[in-house]
Amino acid sequence: MASIAELGERGALERFLPHLTQSENVLVGPGDDAAVLRSGGELVVTTDTMFEGADFRHDWSTFADLGTKAVTTNLTDIAAMGATPTGLVIALGVPGRIDVRNLEEFAKAADRTLQKLAPGAGVVGGDLSTSERTVISVTAFGDMRGRSPVLRSGARADDRIVVAGELGMSGAGLALLSAGEHPVDELRRRHPQRIEAHVAPLAPVHLGSALADAGATSMLDVSDGLVLDAGRIARASGVELRFDRAALEAFDADLEHVLYGGEDHALLATLPQEATLPDGVLVIGEVRESEAGVTLDGEPVQERGWDPFRR
Amino acid sequence: MASIAELGERGALERFLPHLTQSENVLVGPGDDAAVLRSGGELVVTTDTMFEGADFRHDWSTFADLGTKAVTTNLTDIAAMGATPTGLVIALGVPGRIDVRNLEEFAKAADRTLQKLAPGAGVVGGDLSTSERTVISVTAFGDMRGRSPVLRSGARADDRIVVAGELGMSGAGLALLSAGEHPVDELRRRHPQRIEAHVAPLAPVHLGSALADAGATSMLDVSDGLVLDAGRIARASGVELRFDRAALEAFDADLEHVLYGGEDHALLATLPQEATLPDGVLVIGEVRESEAGVTLDGEPVQERGWDPFRR
Repeated sequence: MASIAELGERGALERFLPHLTQSENVLVGPGDDAAVLRSGGELVVTTDTMFEGADFRHDWSTFADLGTKAVTTNLTDIAAMGATPTGLVIALGVPGRIDVRNLEEFAKAADRTLQKLAPGAGVVGGDLSTSERTVISVTAFGDMRGRSPVLRSGARADDRIVVAGELGMSGAGLALLSAGEHPVDELRRRHPQRIEAHVAPLAPVHLGSALADAGATSMLDVSDGLVLDAGRIARASGVELRFDRAALEAFDADLEHVLYGGEDHALLATLPQEATLPDGVLVIGEVRESEAGVTLDGEPVQERGWDPFRR
Repeated sequence: MASIAELGERGALERFLPHLTQSENVLVGPGDDAAVLRSGGELVVTTDTMFEGADFRHDWSTFADLGTKAVTTNLTDIAAMGATPTGLVIALGVPGRIDVRNLEEFAKAADRTLQKLAPGAGVVGGDLSTSERTVISVTAFGDMRGRSPVLRSGARADDRIVVAGELGMSGAGLALLSAGEHPVDELRRRHPQRIEAHVAPLAPVHLGSALADAGATSMLDVSDGLVLDAGRIARASGVELRFDRAALEAFDADLEHVLYGGEDHALLATLPQEATLPDGVLVIGEVRESEAGVTLDGEPVQERGWDPFRR
């Protein structure tokens, strides 16, 4: 094995960069002061950082898992605007003592995820530093391609509420890991879908632009929990988001995890009744004109969810 | 005082965001899944992360200093491509126990620096998390505005070597702080320029596009030390960068700091002899056709400098 400290920044990057597929939009790639990316007239930008401890644990997540999760969580934010992802930059802080193969696994998984969820996009730049605890900061870019950004404020009474992706699986996986009743390896064998949904989620990124084209009036990605995120649309749009309890109970997870689990990275959107829904989205409720916020069959549900400073 | 943990993410952001000037390029600002920024056809992107411990110490740098440094170091990377900065995103990880006023000071300084160095650009998004040690990750954007990117590989024999900004001051400041012979407050009073050059540097960002317009054949920002960074141009261009010892000795710092100090964030560029130099740049040498790499009056100098994994 060779540690990152032994190889130095340059040596470590030489092991990292070859695993990345060049973005088809890149005019100047990694290695200069900045990258240059072909771009449309409207640039969509999002950034998300994962901290060891607060956001992940190395005994639960491999570096490959982290590569997948860092890419997915950023791409879904781009998708939730109705945009097409074009590229991303990754800033990594890792302990110098770790084996460089961890970096390679991270790069391979990040690239695989990017090729799968947003073919044509690529990693256009990055930054590698030493840090006692691992920190992964990703900034992703997208192009509106002539569409209007889909905000949180456009939901209208009578719209249908739809979801693209899983709900509750990540929360269920986290609950299994947190219970600590079985070794992680065994949990991965026995509950592969739930554990993967939490540590290495994938999401239907391509449905973001498809939902925008279908006429989505509002959209976001479910990261802090369905109720908390739906509450953001309800407040911004001044409407009630009335979920259909039976539709939510049909997901393959406890209702508690569906409502509050968070980190699903599904796309939650509202569309007019007459809109033709893209394949792969599921109707889970209806928008009403009321100040009730988020309800289940009209009954108010408690808004609670994720705040990184309050756990 | 109110700690960030007491206020929660949302409360802390409410204290942070009002200090930021809206970018004139922003179509959708902070608060949705992603920001949307008006953009030209060629997007320039760079990312840089500062870690407490490896990159800064809280007993030397205030949060205001860090806001300034995080902005400057990223803007100079954009400028070094010959681009005009358009905006940036900031991901912050800070301990929950600190006073929220630190965040406000950070935001004010970041905004002030941005307005000063790149008027019209703004902070378009960000991410706030909890972290035991402070981490500041910035990704900055720029627009080529029809110019060609100025790479490291274009220096040609007979070009003049120029610098825009200070050399050696940051290294001199770091040496004073590292010596630890006087309290930081006293050092700031006695050597304000040197200490500021290290903890809260500014740089002539606008000269990046001016140098590109003047015909710069290569350019980078001096972050790892003049010799190490000049070596990158020499290798990429296949030429010798011959510095004029007298010109370098004229800087207001020891030659050792001028050559190896790093973190100056000055712009180092090469231009044809006949180019008209913008105001504020200084000729410090000449490009020669040789394989000698970096020399001082033709004498080879040792290449050494900054590697975050090898200290």
